[in-house]
Amino acid sequence: MDIGLIAGILGGFALVLYGILAGGSPMSSFIDVGSIVIVIGGGIAATFVQYPLGDMLGIGKVFSKALKNPEFNTGQIIDKVIELANIARREGLLALEEAVDQVNDDFLKKGVMLIVDGTDPEMVKAILETELMNMTDRHSRGRGIFEALGALMPAFGMIGTLVGLVAMLQNLSDPSSIGPSMAVALLTTFYGSLFANLIFIPIAGKLKIKSDEEFLVKQVMIEGLLSIQAGENPRIIEQKLKAFLSPSVRGAIGTPEEGGKDE
Amino acid sequence: MDIGLIAGILGGFALVLYGILAGGSPMSSFIDVGSIVIVIGGGIAATFVQYPLGDMLGIGKVFSKALKNPEFNTGQIIDKVIELANIARREGLLALEEAVDQVNDDFLKKGVMLIVDGTDPEMVKAILETELMNMTDRHSRGRGIFEALGALMPAFGMIGTLVGLVAMLQNLSDPSSIGPSMAVALLTTFYGSLFANLIFIPIAGKLKIKSDEEFLVKQVMIEGLLSIQAGENPRIIEQKLKAFLSPSVRGAIGTPEEGGKDE
Amino acid sequence: MDIGLIAGILGGFALVLYGILAGGSPMSSFIDVGSIVIVIGGGIAATFVQYPLGDMLGIGKVFSKALKNPEFNTGQIIDKVIELANIARREGLLALEEAVDQVNDDFLKKGVMLIVDGTDPEMVKAILETELMNMTDRHSRGRGIFEALGALMPAFGMIGTLVGLVAMLQNLSDPSSIGPSMAVALLTTFYGSLFANLIFIPIAGKLKIKSDEEFLVKQVMIEGLLSIQAGENPRIIEQKLKAFLSPSVRGAIGTPEEGGKDE
Amino acid sequence: MDIGLIAGILGGFALVLYGILAGGSPMSSFIDVGSIVIVIGGGIAATFVQYPLGDMLGIGKVFSKALKNPEFNTGQIIDKVIELANIARREGLLALEEAVDQVNDDFLKKGVMLIVDGTDPEMVKAILETELMNMTDRHSRGRGIFEALGALMPAFGMIGTLVGLVAMLQNLSDPSSIGPSMAVALLTTFYGSLFANLIFIPIAGKLKIKSDEEFLVKQVMIEGLLSIQAGENPRIIEQKLKAFLSPSVRGAIGTPEEGGKDE
Amino acid sequence: MDIGLIAGILGGFALVLYGILAGGSPMSSFIDVGSIVIVIGGGIAATFVQYPLGDMLGIGKVFSKALKNPEFNTGQIIDKVIELANIARREGLLALEEAVDQVNDDFLKKGVMLIVDGTDPEMVKAILETELMNMTDRHSRGRGIFEALGALMPAFGMIGTLVGLVAMLQNLSDPSSIGPSMAVALLTTFYGSLFANLIFIPIAGKLKIKSDEEFLVKQVMIEGLLSIQAGENPRIIEQKLKAFLSPSVRGAIGTPEEGGKDE
Repeated sequence: MDIGLIAGILGGFALVLYGILAGGSPMSSFIDVGSIVIVIGGGIAATFVQYPLGDMLGIGKVFSKALKNPEFNTGQIIDKVIELANIARREGLLALEEAVDQVNDDFLKKGVMLIVDGTDPEMVKAILETELMNMTDRHSRGRGIFEALGALMPAFGMIGTLVGLVAMLQNLSDPSSIGPSMAVALLTTFYGSLFANLIFIPIAGKLKIKSDEEFLVKQVMIEGLLSIQAGENPRIIEQKLKAFLSPSVRGAIGTPEEGGKDE
Repeated sequence: MDIGLIAGILGGFALVLYGILAGGSPMSSFIDVGSIVIVIGGGIAATFVQYPLGDMLGIGKVFSKALKNPEFNTGQIIDKVIELANIARREGLLALEEAVDQVNDDFLKKGVMLIVDGTDPEMVKAILETELMNMTDRHSRGRGIFEALGALMPAFGMIGTLVGLVAMLQNLSDPSSIGPSMAVALLTTFYGSLFANLIFIPIAGKLKIKSDEEFLVKQVMIEGLLSIQAGENPRIIEQKLKAFLSPSVRGAIGTPEEGGKDE
Repeated sequence: MDIGLIAGILGGFALVLYGILAGGSPMSSFIDVGSIVIVIGGGIAATFVQYPLGDMLGIGKVFSKALKNPEFNTGQIIDKVIELANIARREGLLALEEAVDQVNDDFLKKGVMLIVDGTDPEMVKAILETELMNMTDRHSRGRGIFEALGALMPAFGMIGTLVGLVAMLQNLSDPSSIGPSMAVALLTTFYGSLFANLIFIPIAGKLKIKSDEEFLVKQVMIEGLLSIQAGENPRIIEQKLKAFLSPSVRGAIGTPEEGGKDE
Repeated sequence: MDIGLIAGILGGFALVLYGILAGGSPMSSFIDVGSIVIVIGGGIAATFVQYPLGDMLGIGKVFSKALKNPEFNTGQIIDKVIELANIARREGLLALEEAVDQVNDDFLKKGVMLIVDGTDPEMVKAILETELMNMTDRHSRGRGIFEALGALMPAFGMIGTLVGLVAMLQNLSDPSSIGPSMAVALLTTFYGSLFANLIFIPIAGKLKIKSDEEFLVKQVMIEGLLSIQAGENPRIIEQKLKAFLSPSVRGAIGTPEEGGKDE
Repeated sequence: MDIGLIAGILGGFALVLYGILAGGSPMSSFIDVGSIVIVIGGGIAATFVQYPLGDMLGIGKVFSKALKNPEFNTGQIIDKVIELANIARREGLLALEEAVDQVNDDFLKKGVMLIVDGTDPEMVKAILETELMNMTDRHSRGRGIFEALGALMPAFGMIGTLVGLVAMLQNLSDPSSIGPSMAVALLTTFYGSLFANLIFIPIAGKLKIKSDEEFLVKQVMIEGLLSIQAGENPRIIEQKLKAFLSPSVRGAIGTPEEGGKDE
C-alpha cells in the first residue's frame, strides 16, 4: 500500500489541527456539519451532473489504484523481456507459449500469445498500441473525477460562504452574533480548500504519475515484444530497453530494487 | 435519459436549500428576481455576441444530447462489426448490402454502402475520417456555448455585485439598510457561481465525455470497416477491435451490458 | 450584418441598466468620465505597447469581420465545386477558365487558375495550404487585439480602483465622503469587467468562430480542387465533400439555406 | 524605433496620473520608494533565481529587439528572392555568389552560400530549419524573462501589501494612522499591477509578435532558397511565396511599403 | 555553483526584510512558528500524497541540479564532435574506441560505443532518442515537485489564514486583540506567497531551463554521432551543428567561454 499517500493526508490534517489548537480555539469551532454537507454534497452533486453513474460508482476502484504499489518496475520487466528473448532465440518463437504461463502480466501475456499465433508484426504493433492508447484514455477519465472534485469543492466552499454572508447581512440587529456567523460562513471555504488541496488535487496527481509509469512499462513491453518477434539479438534488445531507464538504475537490472525514482 | 445529470442538479439545489434553511434564513432572502435577471440575462446576452443565432437556437438540441443515453456501447458495435465481417467472408462484400438494412447507425451504414459500392479503400478511410473529424469539431462548438455560459455567469455575478455595492456605498445615510443592501448585492455572485458550477461547467464536461465516447465508437467502426474491406480474418478483427475495450469488459462481448465504465 | 452581436451588446447594457435602476440608484452614480478614461485609455495604451500601429489602425476592419455575415456557407461551396467538377469532366480542365469568371471567391478562383495553368498538383496543394495557414495566422493575430483588451480592461479596472482606494484612505477625516469615494473607486472595476465580458471577450470568440468557418470552407475548396485536378468522379467528390457537413444539412445541398448550425 | 511601444507606456502612465490628479490626490501620496523597491526588487530577485546571469544581463538587448523596427518586411524579401531566382536561372547557381554580396540578411546569405557550395538540398533544408527552430527557442527564452516579471511583479505587490497590512494590524492603537498605513500597503499591489500590465506583459506580447514575423520571413527565405536550388520557374516561385502574404498586400510587391498588417 | 540562484533568494528575503523594517515594525511581528509549520508542513504533506517516497527523498538531488553549472556548453560539445569526426575520417570508425576514453560525457560515450560496435544506424538513433525522451520525462517529473509546492504553499497559506480568521471571529469580545489576531492570520498567506514566488516557482523555472539546455546539447550529440556514422564531411557536420547555436557565439567555437546566453 502507498504509505506516503495515507501519511500525507493524515499528516496534513494533523498539521491543520495543530494550527487550530495552537491558536487557542476549541476544535468544535471548526466543525460544522451543515457546512461539510454543502461542500462535499455540492461537489459530489455537480460531479454526478458530469460523470455517468458507472464512473461515479467506480471511484473506489480508481482510488484503490492510487493506493496500490505497482507490481513490477521497469527494470524487472526488462529482465523478463530479455529472458523471453533468450528463450525465443534458443528454442524458437513457439517455445514462448510455455514460458508465457509464468508471466503474470496480462498485457505482456497477450503480446506473447499474438507472436506465438504468428500474427503479422504490423498487426501486433497496432493491437498493442491501440490497447495502450485506450488504457491511457480510461486512466485520464477516471482521474478526471478527482480533478473535477478538486475544482468543485472550493467553488461550493465559496457558494456556502456566500450563503452564510447573505444570511448574516440580512440580520445585523444583534452585533454579538456577527462574528460567530461570519466564522461559520468562512468554514465552507476552509473545508473546500482543504479537501481540494490535501486530498483531491494531489490524488489526481498521483493517478497521473501511476498512469505515466504504467505507460512507460507497457511501452517497454511493446518495444521488447516487437524486437523478439523480429528476432533481434538479446544484447541489442537489452541496450534498447535500458534506454528507457535512468542511468543510475541501469546497473541494478537483475537485482530486486525499491521502486524509487532517480535523476 | 441520463438520471445522474438531473439528479445531480436537483440534489445540488436541494443541498444549497438545506444550507440556507439550516442557517435559519427564510428562503425569500435568497430570491431576488432582478439579480437573477442580471446574471442569467447578462450571461446569455454576452453569449449572443459570440455565437451565431443558429447555434443559440440549437442549444436545446445540444442539451438533449447531454441528457440522452447512447444507443450503443462499444461492445455492441464490435459484435455488429464482427457479424458483418463474417457475412462478408462467407457471402462476399456485396452481401453486406442486405445486412446493412438492419444496421441502425447512420455512420456504420454509410461506411458499409461505400464498401459495397466498391469505393477505393484510401477514399473510404478519407471520407469516414473527415466525417469523424468534423463531427468532433461540431460537438466542440456546441459544447462551447455551455463553457462560455460557465465562464460568463460568474463574471456577470461579479458585475451585478459591483452594481449593488456602488449603489449601497452612495447611500450610507441609513445604517440599517447597509446589511440588507450588501446581502442583495452578494446574491448575483452567489447565483453566478451556483449556475456555473452546478449546471453549465458540469454539462459542458458531460458533453465532452459523450463526444469522446462517440469518437471511440466511430473509430472502432472505421477500423472494423477497413478490416472488412481488406478481407481480414474475423478472429483477427475481433482481437483488433477488443483492444479498444477495457480488459474487464472484453469477456462480456456478445451479452447486453449496462453502459458503465471500468478500470 | 450580424444582428446577434449588436443585439447581445445592447441587450447586455440594457440588463445592467435595468439592474441599476431596479436598485433605485440614479443612472448618474454609475457614470464617471475619469474612470472610463482610465479603464479604456489604459487598456488601449497597453495594447499599443504590444501591437504595431498598423494592427491598431486595422482594428475597425477586424471588427467589421465579426459583424459581417459570411457570403457563402459550406453547402453552397460544395454545390459550386461539384458544378466545376462536372464542367471539367465534360469539357476538360481548360473549360474551367471560362467558368471561373462567375466564381466570386478569390481563393477558389486562384485555385482554378492554378489548375488551368497546368500547375503540378503537389504545387497547387502547397500553395493553397500555405495561403490557408497564413490566413489562419493573420486571423489569430487580428483576434489577439480583442483578447488583449479583454484581459487588460479588468486589469486597468483594478488599477483604477486601487488609485481610488489609496486616495480615499489617505483622506478619512470626513466620514461622509468615504462611501461615495469608495463607490467611485469601484466603478473602474465595474467598467473593466463589463467591457471585457460583454464586448471584447465575446467578440474575440466570434472572430474565432468566423475564422474556423472560413478555414472549413477553404479546406473544402482545396479538397475539391485537388479532386477536380485528379479527374475524380463528381459523385465521389460529392461524397468526399459532404463528409465536411453535419448529417442534418447534407440533404439540403443545392437549395439556399440560412447559415445556422446543426447537430 | 517602435514609437507605439514608447507612446503606449508613456500614455498609460499619463492616464493613471490623470486619474490620480482628477481624484484630487497629491501625486506624492502615490510615490513610496520602499514600496517600489519591494515590488521591482523582489520581482527581479525572483527572476535571478530562475534565469542564468547571462540571460539577465542580456535583457537590455532583448528589450532593444522589442523597440527596433524590422529591417525587411515579407514583401521585400519575396522581391529579393525572386531577383535571386532570376539570376540563378539566367546565369546559373554559381552566379549567386556575386549577387549575395548585396544581400544584407545573414540568414539569406548563409542559405545562398550553402547552395553555391553545392550542398545537398536535404542538407540545406535541415541546416536552415535547425537554425530557424533554434532561433525561435532562443526568442522564447528571452521573452520568458519579461513574462516572468509580468507574473512576479503582481505577486510581490501582494506580498508587499501583506507586509503593510500585518504591520498596520499590529498597531491599531492610533486610529488616525490606519487609513494612511493601509493606503501605503495598497501601493505595492498598485505598482505590481501597473508595471505588469503596462510594461512587462505587453512587451512580452510584442516580442512574440516580432518573433512570429521573423519566423515567417525566414520560412519564406527557406521556401524560396529550396525552390531556387531545385531550379523552379521564377513565376511559380513568386506564386508560392505570395501565398505567405495577405491578399491585400500581394499587389504591392516590388514597391516599398510601411510594415502595417492587413486583413 | 549557480550564484544567481542563491543571490536571488537571499536578495529577495533581504528586500522583504527591508520593507518590514522600513515600515517601522519589529522583525518579530513577522515570525510565527505555528504559521510556518502550517504552510510548509501542509504543502509538504500534500506533496507526499502525490509523489512516491523515492521522489520526495530525491528532492535534494533535484535541487542540486538547479544549483550546479553545466559542465559543457553547446559550443564545446560541437568542438568535441568535430574532433571525433576528424578522427573517424582519418583513422576509421574503430579509432573512436580509443578517443572515447577522453570523452567524459556518458551519453556521448555511449553513442560512440554503439557506433564502434557497428550497431545499425536506425538502431543507434532509436536508442539515443529513447534515452533523450526518457531523460526529459524524468526531469519533468523531478521538476513537478517544485511546481506542486509552488501551487500548494499559497493554498495552505490561505487555509492557515482562514483558520486564524475563524478563530478570531469567534472571539470578538476583546476588541484590542482583533488587530494582532488578524495580523497573525495573514502571516500564513504571506509565507505561502513568498516561498512560492521567491523559491519554488523560480526554481522549477530554472530546472526547466537546465533541462532544455541539456536537451539541446544531447540533440547536438545525436545529430553529430549520426553524421559521423554516416561518414559525412567534418566541415558539413560543423555547419549542421553550428545551426544549433545563436549566430553571435558561432565564431567563438574552439575557445572556452562563459555559459552565458546571447540573442
